Amino acid sequence: MTTARNRRDLLKTSALAGGSLLLGSTRREARAGQKTAANPTLKTITNLRTIHGNFTDREIPDETVETILQASVRAANSSNMQTYSIVVVRDREKMRQVCNYRGSCMLLYCVDFTRIKTSAEALGHSYWPDSIVHLVTAGINTAFAAQTAVIAAQSLGVDCLTTNGIHRGDMERVWTLLDLPKSSCFPLIAVVMGYPTKEPDHKKGRLCGPGVIHREKYHQLTDKEMKQVVAAYDDKARHLALNAAWSNQGHKHYLDWLFKVWLKRDAAPTPAETQMLGLLKRSGFIDLQKT
Amino acid sequence: MTTARNRRDLLKTSALAGGSLLLGSTRREARAGQKTAANPTLKTITNLRTIHGNFTDREIPDETVETILQASVRAANSSNMQTYSIVVVRDREKMRQVCNYRGSCMLLYCVDFTRIKTSAEALGHSYWPDSIVHLVTAGINTAFAAQTAVIAAQSLGVDCLTTNGIHRGDMERVWTLLDLPKSSCFPLIAVVMGYPTKEPDHKKGRLCGPGVIHREKYHQLTDKEMKQVVAAYDDKARHLALNAAWSNQGHKHYLDWLFKVWLKRDAAPTPAETQMLGLLKRSGFIDLQKT
Repeated sequence: MTTARNRRDLLKTSALAGGSLLLGSTRREARAGQKTAANPTLKTITNLRTIHGNFTDREIPDETVETILQASVRAANSSNMQTYSIVVVRDREKMRQVCNYRGSCMLLYCVDFTRIKTSAEALGHSYWPDSIVHLVTAGINTAFAAQTAVIAAQSLGVDCLTTNGIHRGDMERVWTLLDLPKSSCFPLIAVVMGYPTKEPDHKKGRLCGPGVIHREKYHQLTDKEMKQVVAAYDDKARHLALNAAWSNQGHKHYLDWLFKVWLKRDAAPTPAETQMLGLLKRSGFIDLQKT
Repeated sequence: MTTARNRRDLLKTSALAGGSLLLGSTRREARAGQKTAANPTLKTITNLRTIHGNFTDREIPDETVETILQASVRAANSSNMQTYSIVVVRDREKMRQVCNYRGSCMLLYCVDFTRIKTSAEALGHSYWPDSIVHLVTAGINTAFAAQTAVIAAQSLGVDCLTTNGIHRGDMERVWTLLDLPKSSCFPLIAVVMGYPTKEPDHKKGRLCGPGVIHREKYHQLTDKEMKQVVAAYDDKARHLALNAAWSNQGHKHYLDWLFKVWLKRDAAPTPAETQMLGLLKRSGFIDLQKT
C-alpha cells in the first residue's frame, strides 16, 4: 500500500519534480505563450515552480515576509470581510510538525470567521457562519490570498511549496500546535517559503486544452481527445508526470501508474466518514451540525 | 429584508466601492508597503481592484484571453492532476444568466474530476473522488488557478470581478446553461473580465494586523485590539467599508451596519439544508452520499 510517507518520498526524490516550458497544444496557444514572456508579471507566473523537499537554512528577511503578507491581503474577498487568518511560523521544527516540510517561513492559511464572529458579539449582534456556503465562500477568499502570496514571493526570488500536508495524519495536531479555535476556523493550505537547495531541472507541464478549457459550454472529451490526453501525459517532453520512471516500472501509460500506484487509495468508494468531514462538522461549517 | 438584488445594487452604486492606498497599521507594515512599489509584479498585485457593475462593450482580444488561460494553469496543483475545468464564455447574455454580470469574457472555474474519472475508466481503472477531501483539495487548486488568471489579467490592463453570483438564486441554471456534468463537477467561482466604464475612486483597504495575521501561533484579539478593529472599519480614510453612508443611516459603527443590514440573513442559525449542500451531495463530494 502506498502510504503518505512513500508518496512524499517519491516526490522529494523524483527526477521529474520539474517540467518543461509550457507547451501549447494549438498554434493559438503557442502564440499566446510567446506573448507571455513580454510582461514581468506574466514572466513571474510562467516561472512559478514547486520546490519539493526542504529548503536551505538561508532565512527570508522579515521585511520580505511583511511585503508578501501585504500583497497577500490585496486579493479580492467577499464583502471585504477577510474571512481568513494567516499564521506566520518561522520556527522550522514547528513547521515540520504542522506540514512535514521545513522552510524559512510557513504561512498557514485558515478559513476563519473568528474575528467577524467575536466582533459581532462585542457589538451585541449575532452571526452564524454555520453552513457549507460559508466554508466554500471563505475557502475561495483564503485560497486567493494564498496564491497571491505565492506570486508575490516568486517575484521577490522566494520559492514556495503549497502543501495540504496539514490534512494528512492526525489533523488535530494543527489545532494543538498553533492554538487554532475549535469552531469557525479550518486550516486550508500551508505555503512553505524559502530558498531551494538546488534548482529543479524542469518546470512541470500543464494541460491547457480539451478536458481543461471549454468554450462557451462544457465539452465532454471525445474518444480521440481522450487518447490525446493519455498521450500528452506519456510524452516525457511535456513533463506532466510526477514519476519519470513509470515506463520502466511496467506501465503502458503514465496514467496507469497514476491510478494503480499513486491514486490507489481512491480505487474504491470512501468507506467511512473522513477525518476532515468530522473536523468540518466540529468547526460548524456543515449545515445543521450545531456543535 | 435585504435581498441579493439589493445587495448587488448597493455595491454597484456605492461611492465606497473603491479604497485608498494600502494603509499599514504598524511601522513595519508601512516599511514593507513602500518596498512593494518597487517590483512590477508587486505593483500589479497592489493595483488589484474589483469592478462592480458591468463592463464596457470593448472586447478583450482573443490572444489576450489565451495568454490569461496559459498563465492560469501555471498555478500549483495537487499531484499535477488539474482537477478543474475552466469554461470560457464570451456570450454576454449567457454571462448575465450565469452570474448576473456582463463583461467581455467570463471564466467559470469549476472543481472537476470528470477528465480524471473518465480517463481512469477508459484505461480500465476505478477512481472515486467521493469525499469532502476531494472537494477541498480540488477547490484550492481551482481557486489558485482563478486568482492567477486575475493577476495575469491585471498585468495586461484587463479588469476583473470575481463573483460567487453563481451560488445565488437557482444554481441549477449554471449546470443547465453550460452543460456541466451532474456528478464530480461543481462551479466554484466566476471571473468576469473586461474594461471598466469608469475608474473607481479608490481601492479597497484591507486589515493586515491582529485578527488577520498571527505570529507563531493563533492570537485571540484582546478587548483593546477588538476596539482597534472596530475603529479601523469606522475610519473612512482606510476604505474598509462596503457602504460609505453607514454613519448617515443611524449606525454607531460600520460593523453595526454590516451585521444589521448586510449580514442580516446570518443573524440566526441556518434553518435548513442549503441548496449548495444538496448540490454538493449530488456532485458526490460529501462523504458516504453515493448518488
